[in-house]
Amino acid sequence: MNNVGFVSLVGAGPGDPDLWTVRALKRIEEADLVLYDALVDAEAVRRVTAAQCFCVGKRAGRASVRQETIHKLMIRAARQGKRVVRLKGGDPFVFGRGGEEAVALAEAGVSFEVVPGVTTAVAAAEMAGIPVTHRGVASAFLVLAGRTGDALAESLDAVRPHSVTLVVMMGLAVREEIAMRLTAHGWSADTAAAIVCGASTPEEWIWTGRLADMAAAAPPAGVAGVLVIGDVVRIREAMAAACARPANVGSPARRRAGVPDEVKYGRS
Amino acid sequence: MNNVGFVSLVGAGPGDPDLWTVRALKRIEEADLVLYDALVDAEAVRRVTAAQCFCVGKRAGRASVRQETIHKLMIRAARQGKRVVRLKGGDPFVFGRGGEEAVALAEAGVSFEVVPGVTTAVAAAEMAGIPVTHRGVASAFLVLAGRTGDALAESLDAVRPHSVTLVVMMGLAVREEIAMRLTAHGWSADTAAAIVCGASTPEEWIWTGRLADMAAAAPPAGVAGVLVIGDVVRIREAMAAACARPANVGSPARRRAGVPDEVKYGRS
Repeated sequence: MNNVGFVSLVGAGPGDPDLWTVRALKRIEEADLVLYDALVDAEAVRRVTAAQCFCVGKRAGRASVRQETIHKLMIRAARQGKRVVRLKGGDPFVFGRGGEEAVALAEAGVSFEVVPGVTTAVAAAEMAGIPVTHRGVASAFLVLAGRTGDALAESLDAVRPHSVTLVVMMGLAVREEIAMRLTAHGWSADTAAAIVCGASTPEEWIWTGRLADMAAAAPPAGVAGVLVIGDVVRIREAMAAACARPANVGSPARRRAGVPDEVKYGRS
Repeated sequence: MNNVGFVSLVGAGPGDPDLWTVRALKRIEEADLVLYDALVDAEAVRRVTAAQCFCVGKRAGRASVRQETIHKLMIRAARQGKRVVRLKGGDPFVFGRGGEEAVALAEAGVSFEVVPGVTTAVAAAEMAGIPVTHRGVASAFLVLAGRTGDALAESLDAVRPHSVTLVVMMGLAVREEIAMRLTAHGWSADTAAAIVCGASTPEEWIWTGRLADMAAAAPPAGVAGVLVIGDVVRIREAMAAACARPANVGSPARRRAGVPDEVKYGRS
């Protein structure tokens, strides 16, 4: 152990530990303390490190540890000379309050680094065969968080209808409100939409359809989901149509059937 | 070698091979053929694989290989039973035509997968201490590509001024046009802005200032850059102000001085 502690704010990607970065893996292996969020694969963390590991995220209905408490835990451990890994789902600076943690550490005079991760905002769509940008279809994408009330309405009204791909993180619960707001704001009810839950995990679940039908989709309970709205959703269908079997990337069904992880699409 | 070939469309992240995913590293190690873009660390690729490696990206003024040629190379090699890695800077589905490559492979009946990478759209800002979202500052971010002409104007006009963080990829050459367009469209000339070039590489170069001064910044030649526009840029200054030394994440100067890679901020 170093006698000067430090904190690594590390992105764990969408779920599958194979999508951790090489640096994330190193930091976890060398850590003395890992504070991880609920969406992180805790078993995988424990397999590679002898560090103390604590879940500080919201889990199974129980309240999460308060943000200020997380700051205190990190700062105290670092001052004790520990290597602390704060492991967050996706990327630390895409929602998830990583910026606040960085500022708290800087203000406390604790040395730290940020290790970017694969953001779920892009990867969830991607693993469902949907590129957030595509030549001639979408040349920009907007990422927002699904919240209720004014903040959501403001974000949704901020862009001209059909001008960009919309990616809504944590938007499952408010998908009906989002669809209504967007159609009221000028988006067509027929706009292509997708819901991707548990991307890259065995719980992966994908729905595609029309914006107007998004509310009626029935995603599994207790799984985080991302909404994707825009014509790029049709690229998935184009890929599926070109394949003999449906484009069902990383599906648990396929994994159970023993199809190699790397063979995701195609006629093999 | 497998007797059924396949293609992995792999994101290499912003530059530093430590920001490859674990799966990306595995695929490169096991590949028979690697077709990589100009921004990928070719030396790092060759260190870990015995595969044939070809640069198919634009480099030092020479024209890049045509997109259709890249498709043909991938399809032919896969049909010969080869494991092909198409290694792209950042994430394969954030600009960079990964979606087109996926569709071409699907249409040719070639089995493939997509391996998400750390997108430079988020990581460039992040490694400069700028979170693209931050509670009370920005609750959404828009990613677009810096192009000249109507497409750029259309994307810039599509969002309400000051409503979101703007991230412009490949926008260095058009930064004056972008600043003018945004101020004409209602953004304040005093809006905080950053330019991050060569994020996570030894060539990293960071500028922060006002939107109106962005055109006068003098980034190094021949390095890719990302523009970040919005109040989140000030978070970097807040971190720097809290630290005894400037928040200069992963700077080459620090690396040369022998400061450990992990100690990025703080008073240590």
